[in-house]
Amino acid sequence: MNIYDIASQAGVSIATVSRVLNGSDKVSPRTRARVLEIIERSGYTPNIFAQGLGIGTIHAVGILVPDISDLFMADSVAFLERLLRARGYSSLLATSGFERESKEQQVQMLLSKKVDALILVGSTYAGAGVDPEETGYIRRAAEQIPVFLINGQVEGENIFSCVCDDYAAMYSITSQLIGRGHRRFLFLTDSGSYSALQKRAGHEDALRDAGITPDPALSLRMPNRIHPVRDQLLERTSERTPGDVSGSADASPEAPLRFDAVIATDDGMAVGAVKYAAARGLHLPDDLEIVGYNNSSLSVACEPELTSIDNLLSEMCEKTVHHLHEYLSGDHDQPRQVRLGWRLVERGTTKRS
Amino acid sequence: MNIYDIASQAGVSIATVSRVLNGSDKVSPRTRARVLEIIERSGYTPNIFAQGLGIGTIHAVGILVPDISDLFMADSVAFLERLLRARGYSSLLATSGFERESKEQQVQMLLSKKVDALILVGSTYAGAGVDPEETGYIRRAAEQIPVFLINGQVEGENIFSCVCDDYAAMYSITSQLIGRGHRRFLFLTDSGSYSALQKRAGHEDALRDAGITPDPALSLRMPNRIHPVRDQLLERTSERTPGDVSGSADASPEAPLRFDAVIATDDGMAVGAVKYAAARGLHLPDDLEIVGYNNSSLSVACEPELTSIDNLLSEMCEKTVHHLHEYLSGDHDQPRQVRLGWRLVERGTTKRS
Repeated sequence: MNIYDIASQAGVSIATVSRVLNGSDKVSPRTRARVLEIIERSGYTPNIFAQGLGIGTIHAVGILVPDISDLFMADSVAFLERLLRARGYSSLLATSGFERESKEQQVQMLLSKKVDALILVGSTYAGAGVDPEETGYIRRAAEQIPVFLINGQVEGENIFSCVCDDYAAMYSITSQLIGRGHRRFLFLTDSGSYSALQKRAGHEDALRDAGITPDPALSLRMPNRIHPVRDQLLERTSERTPGDVSGSADASPEAPLRFDAVIATDDGMAVGAVKYAAARGLHLPDDLEIVGYNNSSLSVACEPELTSIDNLLSEMCEKTVHHLHEYLSGDHDQPRQVRLGWRLVERGTTKRS
Repeated sequence: MNIYDIASQAGVSIATVSRVLNGSDKVSPRTRARVLEIIERSGYTPNIFAQGLGIGTIHAVGILVPDISDLFMADSVAFLERLLRARGYSSLLATSGFERESKEQQVQMLLSKKVDALILVGSTYAGAGVDPEETGYIRRAAEQIPVFLINGQVEGENIFSCVCDDYAAMYSITSQLIGRGHRRFLFLTDSGSYSALQKRAGHEDALRDAGITPDPALSLRMPNRIHPVRDQLLERTSERTPGDVSGSADASPEAPLRFDAVIATDDGMAVGAVKYAAARGLHLPDDLEIVGYNNSSLSVACEPELTSIDNLLSEMCEKTVHHLHEYLSGDHDQPRQVRLGWRLVERGTTKRS
């Protein structure tokens, strides 16, 4: 399969395919998606000589994610790999877990494999934003090759960040729900990463700006898995009877949780809340409104389908690969930080705004 | 974090952690899962000297998958990476798409990065089982390093396969449904891979053995995505009116599909069928029984939750990494083919058997 076949299958001109390959913004998102889909299916790799990427060299890009079983991470890697391949790059992927030592080790491993650039996906690589030495290994790597972060920000020479405005997204959805009369928000998160902290800050600032004091008892850390979240919510919202082992008369018994809206930092937890509501006989969205994050396939699997914040992952990946390609083509003057917007995808777990 | 911390957090002895790291089968699956989970979270990498893997060398294993945005693939890679890390190996991942040329290219790329073994995940690498030259690049790679296939089988020196018995799984679930009175099965698949062909063969043989002739009109290829499957089923089950453009009086009009059970080769399509049933007002499982495949997180997101075949992915990954480790430790006499069983996870879309 060559560029002519790609153009013919996509029903576009060769010039359009070429524009997609070169990351031009003169192609509509719909056409770009169709062309990339066909390229992906075909396994087509552009002739590297024709692209002037150097003779006899296929550039390899190292991609590091903490956990590939996470839907958001897996989708990111799939997008990136497809976009890189379309420009003639090979991808080498590795996973690091969430501990600093293993992140550092895996960055070293990718450097030892002679990659030409690094992409780090996920805000965990930005640390918690407190201790600069937490991200020292990224600055050291950037002395050798350019480093691109997706959904995380690190200061330093040769380091480029593309982030979603998680703070603004959470501020906005929280304000909307307050406007519809909600006061008691359950906030669910599975992580203490930079991105999770930004989301929480946006949520809590929106509460404070509306004169509501955030209640620490309503901010819960949970695994991002459907049944465990459902079960924990069922347990924590139950009245404890006096004879209950877990709430003896001596200890101060934990009061059952009461809330009228749920906001989660990932769809998995939000679907757990949908399951909790069904088990309690609550009607969505009248008795409870629920909002997830990442707009993953889980959000359309549940019933009712889940309203979710789309952080424009595919755009973040496209911008990143575009800047990386420009950089490796010789133009090192790329923007240090790109901040993208977000989009609320409204489905059955919220009332129409 | 060291092995003592791991043992303490898992509440087991150091000897047990060591057994898990060495792939011993004297550890219960539950304990092994707990220990591996803690190792994963901690980013712990065993001291390679202590493991006798050679001085100054960290072995790297190349893992190739066709599409990392597929849940089954992403989960496989996450399992493999964790298991390999626990034994002190680095993983280098790459994706290949589904075309032979790009598979071959990516295998070459991984070989050029000096990996010590290759793991190919997914039956697409086994081809359709017709043309031996389709898998020639795998035999050529195996002249240099051992190659391990998960869920696919290729004959050759230095090639090791671990497969789920997809044929038997499909034969069994089809027979169960026939026993409950079903006759018209809708069979949904998104692929023409070896594994998909095995699944179809098992399904159709069970029909034939019960005296039912498989109806080609009820065997559909669809994308593995929830809403497109729902929409296609709604359209194909609708009566066409005489004035309908798509079914003029001259052409022989396509009769609307009629079926009383749905079997899909992946959960995404099965959840699409669940959505179709809801849109039609059908009651599950009384009006329609639906079975998915892979037992992914989608199967517990939908309502009612989806009965699904679990192909014991985690066990396939464990066996593979165990044999790979034995091989790289010097024992080249590993079984050429390991065939594992499967498990039916019954949920709300089927009647109790």
